[in-house]
Amino acid sequence: MTTGNADEDDRRPGGRRPGQSGTKDAILAAAREQFAAKGYAGATFRGIAAQAGVDPALVRHFFGTKDQLFAATLHLPPEVLHRLQQAFECAPEDMGERFARTYLGLWEDPATGAALMAIMRTALTNDQGADLLRDFLQGRLVEQVASSLGADRPRLRALLAATQLVGAVMARYVVRIEPMASLAIDDVVALLAPNLQHYLTGDLPDHAHRP
Amino acid sequence: MTTGNADEDDRRPGGRRPGQSGTKDAILAAAREQFAAKGYAGATFRGIAAQAGVDPALVRHFFGTKDQLFAATLHLPPEVLHRLQQAFECAPEDMGERFARTYLGLWEDPATGAALMAIMRTALTNDQGADLLRDFLQGRLVEQVASSLGADRPRLRALLAATQLVGAVMARYVVRIEPMASLAIDDVVALLAPNLQHYLTGDLPDHAHRP
Repeated sequence: MTTGNADEDDRRPGGRRPGQSGTKDAILAAAREQFAAKGYAGATFRGIAAQAGVDPALVRHFFGTKDQLFAATLHLPPEVLHRLQQAFECAPEDMGERFARTYLGLWEDPATGAALMAIMRTALTNDQGADLLRDFLQGRLVEQVASSLGADRPRLRALLAATQLVGAVMARYVVRIEPMASLAIDDVVALLAPNLQHYLTGDLPDHAHRP
Repeated sequence: MTTGNADEDDRRPGGRRPGQSGTKDAILAAAREQFAAKGYAGATFRGIAAQAGVDPALVRHFFGTKDQLFAATLHLPPEVLHRLQQAFECAPEDMGERFARTYLGLWEDPATGAALMAIMRTALTNDQGADLLRDFLQGRLVEQVASSLGADRPRLRALLAATQLVGAVMARYVVRIEPMASLAIDDVVALLAPNLQHYLTGDLPDHAHRP
């Protein structure tokens, strides 16, 4: 498809010789298009590199894993995934509180909150954004959380807890509705944690009604 | 796109000559669809008028600004508020399940689901939409639910339950993430109801950390 390192590549569209920052931008632009066109699962380092006119090794050098590259296209700071993963490295009975505190903390932090807001808005305003977010959540995030849970139906549990947190941040940070908007973080965590804990490790009803 | 005043327009799809009230309804229906499909920012007078089969000037004549048109579309189908109100006319211990079943039912029903989707997308994509939704929720919906609760802090309880339901419909209807998207309604209700019930009538922690 294309060859060579971008720093040596005069055949790049536009003929510009990008510096390192330009190369990164070109990779991100290509990654966004490939993720949009093929979904999270379908997009490949090779395809993204080809479209950006660089070697796949350079994509890996700049962005690490496919997760990290995808996170970068969403402008998701790398510590988001890391902190969420760490939240579940604890005793099962503490997971509800830890998940709440970590996720709300990511929204409180300006460095990560803006990125999370952008992602939520994108997912809600266009189907492509929703598709990408779904693939990513199904493929990675829920799986990652679920792998920390010993309980039955771990993916359903992780997702139920996530829905509560997403609804809570919408009320608090997006729509800013009282009294959720003004409560101290510790109070919000204390209010949500028991329900999150129930989803993560409590008794869930059987799917008695499943057709 | 389309021309002429609707009252003179025989080329309207279907060839019907609507009266003023029918024209307004057609514009509102078109506006709801356009806001839902494109968000507040993306929807235009021209596109709404085209879909309604009227001149953009007529849309402006009836509804004024885009904000005012949006506010008009926010007037949900009257049965939404009515059905939510009815959900709380029951024994306190049944409220969690009734609230879940009613709210999810409104999203399942095409007649009301499109309006709810439009509101959610708009609230998330522009601050004005968020303001409108906040005013509506604070002024009407939460107050109405809270008035049915005998417990302490009824507005906080109603809002917490609402955040869980909003997060759940985002996962199920907007992002369509599995396994939430494919579960039978009865299963989703059974999964959410205990937590909703806890918010509505259970013991909530004191605000020990309030500054």
